[in-house]
Amino acid sequence: MTGIPDLAAVEAMDAADSLRSMRDRFVLPEGLIYLDGNSLGAASPAAYAELEKAAREEWGKDLIRSWNTAGWFDMPVELGDRIGRLIGAAPGQTVVADTTSINIYKALHAAMGLRPDRKVIVAEGGSFPTDLYMAEGVVSTRPGAVLRLEGVDAPTIEELIDDHVAVVLVNHVNYKSGELRDMAALTKRAHEAGALVVWDLCHTAGALPVELDRCDADFAVGCTYKYLNGGPGAPAFIYVAARHLGKAEQPLSGWWGHARPFAFEQGYAGDAGIRRFQCGTQGVLSLRALKGALDIWDDVDMQALRTKSIALTDLFIQLVEAKCAGYGLKLESPRDGARRGSQVSFEHENAYAVMQALIERGVIGDFRAPATVRFGFTPLYIGYRDVWQAVEVLEDILRTGTWKDARFAVKSAVT
Amino acid sequence: MTGIPDLAAVEAMDAADSLRSMRDRFVLPEGLIYLDGNSLGAASPAAYAELEKAAREEWGKDLIRSWNTAGWFDMPVELGDRIGRLIGAAPGQTVVADTTSINIYKALHAAMGLRPDRKVIVAEGGSFPTDLYMAEGVVSTRPGAVLRLEGVDAPTIEELIDDHVAVVLVNHVNYKSGELRDMAALTKRAHEAGALVVWDLCHTAGALPVELDRCDADFAVGCTYKYLNGGPGAPAFIYVAARHLGKAEQPLSGWWGHARPFAFEQGYAGDAGIRRFQCGTQGVLSLRALKGALDIWDDVDMQALRTKSIALTDLFIQLVEAKCAGYGLKLESPRDGARRGSQVSFEHENAYAVMQALIERGVIGDFRAPATVRFGFTPLYIGYRDVWQAVEVLEDILRTGTWKDARFAVKSAVT
Repeated sequence: MTGIPDLAAVEAMDAADSLRSMRDRFVLPEGLIYLDGNSLGAASPAAYAELEKAAREEWGKDLIRSWNTAGWFDMPVELGDRIGRLIGAAPGQTVVADTTSINIYKALHAAMGLRPDRKVIVAEGGSFPTDLYMAEGVVSTRPGAVLRLEGVDAPTIEELIDDHVAVVLVNHVNYKSGELRDMAALTKRAHEAGALVVWDLCHTAGALPVELDRCDADFAVGCTYKYLNGGPGAPAFIYVAARHLGKAEQPLSGWWGHARPFAFEQGYAGDAGIRRFQCGTQGVLSLRALKGALDIWDDVDMQALRTKSIALTDLFIQLVEAKCAGYGLKLESPRDGARRGSQVSFEHENAYAVMQALIERGVIGDFRAPATVRFGFTPLYIGYRDVWQAVEVLEDILRTGTWKDARFAVKSAVT
Repeated sequence: MTGIPDLAAVEAMDAADSLRSMRDRFVLPEGLIYLDGNSLGAASPAAYAELEKAAREEWGKDLIRSWNTAGWFDMPVELGDRIGRLIGAAPGQTVVADTTSINIYKALHAAMGLRPDRKVIVAEGGSFPTDLYMAEGVVSTRPGAVLRLEGVDAPTIEELIDDHVAVVLVNHVNYKSGELRDMAALTKRAHEAGALVVWDLCHTAGALPVELDRCDADFAVGCTYKYLNGGPGAPAFIYVAARHLGKAEQPLSGWWGHARPFAFEQGYAGDAGIRRFQCGTQGVLSLRALKGALDIWDDVDMQALRTKSIALTDLFIQLVEAKCAGYGLKLESPRDGARRGSQVSFEHENAYAVMQALIERGVIGDFRAPATVRFGFTPLYIGYRDVWQAVEVLEDILRTGTWKDARFAVKSAVT
């Protein structure tokens, strides 16, 4: 295995890691190698502290008054701006609200409203499915609208973009393969055809630096429970470029999006800013865990994060291909780190059983049907030695064939 | 004041109260008289315990595995059924999801889809505004649809119901006046005209027994952060009558509403049951506080709850009218307890300042523009002596005119 780092070399990488101390800001069980932060990020003392304060102090003692005194009502826009810094959005364009699915619905409707003469939504056949399901929902409520899919109606998304297209809905990083799209280039291509773009950032917010404003993005959505570590089912976010605010409309026109929500007016008058992309009352407890998680991000250099992410995933690919050669694994993610998010996927014909065996041995990743094992590398709390150990376990499972005995091998996957 | 109970009589009412011990299940600051459980219900050790378990044990230690091992994924339907018991819904018809506003959107779309030849939505001009705003949103996405309002297009909602009407959206209890609609009668009236009804139960779920199935209701929505005490911004619920399930469709067709969410299929195929009224990933932490709060309800007799609610609100009206006569208060709620929810509202020309003065003295109620002071009586933790004391403070404020000095009297209301 010449050219492959040994354990000493890997430990030297940890010693030189400028983000290494960030791991202390998270709660992770001893002995677990958690390569699933791209499904559910880890908990943190900061999140616990905010949650407890919101529950015991604000809800328990100040009750209804906390909507004012604890700033509950403004939390969605304040947290939105803090996420904005991580995704290259100047203040006033991002709000935390509802779920990714619902924010896709808002963004697609808003985009189509800005292109009233166009009827086509373009999306990726290989998209995370809820994006497509929500696009179907939008199509069902806009007469004449149609949905065209990359991989179904044409081989590439670029080929689908013409002057009938109102909006392109696209994942910045593919949930399965980890492939990273070129945001600037695709946005430019869409704009040249007169179309708008909605970027789904679920697998990039907190995974790598995103530059929405610089790329001239129109809309973006994303979740906060993966790389941002906001907690299980933490609320999502939506970004609307400043140039569209005041013009873009969305039909989930609830009272939190009203220009004067507490005037209790009979007719809807949407807020001129990003608040219009809110709808109803938000879950304060979930928002507060997210607030705690975002406090950690104030100390993170996003370029250092990206550098480490590529180094971690490069190392994983290198070690797996060297140590697990001949066991039927095939790299599904881009080999070029610049074209990859913070995850690595391999195909294996017994992917489900292999992943179950890994989980039983304390290496947590994901199975994705039909035949993918997926590993997420959160740079804030995964180190190079974790990568080394994960590969040691994987090699052992494949070499000894113990995946055939995996306890849950016949149970269907539910996450 | 002949005929008006004195303090001893009021204390005797507390002594005879079968629900009195329920107060011990809640956290309420000493000295506070909290008459705002109809805005935000009180916290409880049960809610804290569930929240902490979900955060520290399940998220912190089991991480992604908790979606299965802790039953996170099925919580919305399990909690839905538990709320179902309180609102007269047999299992399988209620799910906890999203916000009330968003659930109104789902229900109205579903109802209109079941009446494709009809274009009219009827609602109340005096509705809580977000209901009207969401109806506007639905109208904006259904060509030809129109919204007609009680108090604007006709004096009563019954007069608006004809054979053009697809759906009637109506509050079971009015948020401001506390007036209770006759669910059985109005549903029957709508059905005779071929229309469906969406009931907004925000001010009745947990306030009094609701009988959705018995009243032949079609759809219902409601929040869980008022009388159900689920926590600030706790997730909402939606009820769809069994006879509509499998037929009723809604456009927020996210992956949690798919028949096979983890098969990751490209096309949407809605679940045949209530899960179709889910959309995206729900906030687990907020759901778990709600679960704790619902545990308390397992021990509550809903008829006893209603009896106490009427007794509390009757006593409040009786004492206010006796002790605060001549100070410009005018009863805005129905005098007949059978036609009233668990709240009492009075008009006063300086309502805002009066409420601020009450809050400064530890009696928490709500101001509602332009001139309403509103008091909610949660039977689980409000006693008859609380009612007595609240009226003592109100009388003192009005008699001495100290409301003129209320600290926040010039600040606009924000909740």
